Amino acid sequence: MQRIRTNEASTHVGERVKLAGWMHNLRDMSKFGFLLLRDGAGILQAVLDSPAELEKLRGIQYESVLEVEGTVVAEPRAVGGVELHDCQVTVISPVLEPLPFEINKKELKPGLDTFLNYAPLGLRHPQKRALFRLSAEIVHGFREYLNQQGFVEIQTPKIVAAATESGANVFSIDYFGRPAYLAQSPQFYKQIMVGVFERVFEVGPVFRAEKHNTARHINEYVSLDIEMGFIKDHTDVMDMLTGILRHIFQRLASSCAKELELLKAKLPSIGERIPVLRMPDAQQLIFERYGADCRGEPDLAPQHEVWLCEYATQQLGSELIFITHYPVSKRPFYAMPDDQEPTLTKSFDLLFRGCEIVTGGQRIHRYEQLLNNARKWNIHPEDIEGYLQAFRYGMPPHGGFGMGLERLLMQLTGLANLREATLFPRDLDRLTP
Amino acid sequence: MQRIRTNEASTHVGERVKLAGWMHNLRDMSKFGFLLLRDGAGILQAVLDSPAELEKLRGIQYESVLEVEGTVVAEPRAVGGVELHDCQVTVISPVLEPLPFEINKKELKPGLDTFLNYAPLGLRHPQKRALFRLSAEIVHGFREYLNQQGFVEIQTPKIVAAATESGANVFSIDYFGRPAYLAQSPQFYKQIMVGVFERVFEVGPVFRAEKHNTARHINEYVSLDIEMGFIKDHTDVMDMLTGILRHIFQRLASSCAKELELLKAKLPSIGERIPVLRMPDAQQLIFERYGADCRGEPDLAPQHEVWLCEYATQQLGSELIFITHYPVSKRPFYAMPDDQEPTLTKSFDLLFRGCEIVTGGQRIHRYEQLLNNARKWNIHPEDIEGYLQAFRYGMPPHGGFGMGLERLLMQLTGLANLREATLFPRDLDRLTP
Repeated sequence: MQRIRTNEASTHVGERVKLAGWMHNLRDMSKFGFLLLRDGAGILQAVLDSPAELEKLRGIQYESVLEVEGTVVAEPRAVGGVELHDCQVTVISPVLEPLPFEINKKELKPGLDTFLNYAPLGLRHPQKRALFRLSAEIVHGFREYLNQQGFVEIQTPKIVAAATESGANVFSIDYFGRPAYLAQSPQFYKQIMVGVFERVFEVGPVFRAEKHNTARHINEYVSLDIEMGFIKDHTDVMDMLTGILRHIFQRLASSCAKELELLKAKLPSIGERIPVLRMPDAQQLIFERYGADCRGEPDLAPQHEVWLCEYATQQLGSELIFITHYPVSKRPFYAMPDDQEPTLTKSFDLLFRGCEIVTGGQRIHRYEQLLNNARKWNIHPEDIEGYLQAFRYGMPPHGGFGMGLERLLMQLTGLANLREATLFPRDLDRLTP
Repeated sequence: MQRIRTNEASTHVGERVKLAGWMHNLRDMSKFGFLLLRDGAGILQAVLDSPAELEKLRGIQYESVLEVEGTVVAEPRAVGGVELHDCQVTVISPVLEPLPFEINKKELKPGLDTFLNYAPLGLRHPQKRALFRLSAEIVHGFREYLNQQGFVEIQTPKIVAAATESGANVFSIDYFGRPAYLAQSPQFYKQIMVGVFERVFEVGPVFRAEKHNTARHINEYVSLDIEMGFIKDHTDVMDMLTGILRHIFQRLASSCAKELELLKAKLPSIGERIPVLRMPDAQQLIFERYGADCRGEPDLAPQHEVWLCEYATQQLGSELIFITHYPVSKRPFYAMPDDQEPTLTKSFDLLFRGCEIVTGGQRIHRYEQLLNNARKWNIHPEDIEGYLQAFRYGMPPHGGFGMGLERLLMQLTGLANLREATLFPRDLDRLTP
């Protein structure tokens, strides 16, 4: 008999079927029992009316892998509207060791550290499954929109000869006796590829050897990157990002309603445009509204981001807000300075519910200007020869952004710690599982 | 005026339009000239009938970035059926340095090493663009099929605490003063995730510190990985792989006809099934047909793979062939032994036009058996604690495969060296660009 999945059972009422999955729950009423069988698609109730069948499950633990043959019966009170009767159970992989925590309760109980130590088990909890289904759908929506917009997907190397952003937070590798590094971003490569395809995107791991253990940093994360040529300025990139997010949220609304409900997550609404504040104006606003004077500082502190989002939500009706024109001193050497105010850059961050989730902007596209800037930033031109080469052979005005997948997921679902939005997080203390 | 792309010009006949791109070619006839403008979408001819416009392009090199305003005129002899007249040219980024080689000729001339040194330029050649568009479409087709089959996409860490496959060919990292490694495959994580989603896939970089520089090895490549639960045996995985490849080739046929033509690439046809040979039978066949006695050897040499594909093409009418039942000694500790012949495994390789492109099989799913095997392979259970945990808490029969994206692309387009199928290859000698 061909196995069917739990979500297919309702189309087989009255038939004998075979299912397989994990023993999610069992109520043992001594003479009969109710088994909840969980598979990749969902959960189905199987009524064990023979004591012999029930006996097979005594002494083994939840999460044992079972095969269940039974007859599908309509049962309006059951999830999915059906349950299995006259069941015959086969134990495929028995679990003998008691579970360290329950994963069949509505909420997952253990603290973050215990959870992470037992992630291979804990990730099976329905809320965790919902979370990482959302994650997959975000990436799906990101690619889908960009393919529609004529972008080409690329894969660029993660082992590099020189640090892309700064030498400070880079992991070093022993590359056959030579030093090499893990890429902090696909920045240089995606810019080079603008020369080839005009519009490119990449979904891949990036590595940051940051030595601070905060709730919003991990040392390896998934970056959703785009780079596009022939732009007017950074606002073209912001418009593209707005379109991407709108598409992702629409996709989640239509294909992940159950997951969003399970996680009590609410999608933000994006109006005609996402509101924009220039950095100096944002700092002035913080000073006037919250009394903290950060005017002239090169960057926003986490609390400032919280305030700006509070302001945007309350006054502008948007949970997202762009901050533009970060100072030259805070941005990389390739950031395009503003013609009007050369101490500021044509750059932006996107804040969402109190946290930065995207950094982007226009890049310098003329060779001489880029070379001069590299020197000013104390970067040796010979260390970035391949990158500079693209500019010697003609690059158009271009820009792009990098969006942290885990950050977006964290903010979307209201998680307190970025580690919760990551399957197997890497931080100062954690290299396993 | 809004810029349009070259492929949109034919819908604007008679209109004044703006285009932008690279100076792909220029025929200077002294009083007038023919400019080929290349953008992300294609190439368009612009007739420069005023000497003043032509003058702007004298003294600058091919690959200069230009903006061209002109009137679209139907011209049946031109590529795309239109060309631009009454043009006004603006130079956006002039190229002043002569190009190291021509990229506007039908074939790309330089040798592999020169090409790789100048990849940021060389990748702009139309054949190279076609090649990496194919690459993007392969990945697209892979994901599309798996999403239809209920697989969930995952992203797993590339920094790991212990080698997954063997300690021999792993890159080591300085992880805040502790040793760590680059993942040789997502093997352990994708298996763990079978416990969560049943069916998962991942597209990501893998790292192999192999010290041999061959035409079919690089040290960082893109692996297309799947893992699926509740299988009968390895043949379920082979069937899934067959469906994936059929879908990818259909997709390329319908969406990449131009690219395939430009590369003179021919898609293989997949019949009802891909033919299968058991390893001992394959070795016997090589002995009888080609006179080389490799019977009893644990693995196939490259020449054996060439012969087996030659046999499959000539005798079985298939450019693809599965070899199954590799010996236990040649497969990892998690490979499922065959019940009938315990010295062989329920594993397979897929050979395509003379080269292995996929490795897969059924895995051991029972905790005790896996633990015993780990010990036999001299792997310390505490080094793979997170992995073993999934098995202590119930794993179904499962299996999967890893397919090298670059290998598939190389075989599909008849390239001689894997480096040609990689944007920015990493090998013993090459860490840049």
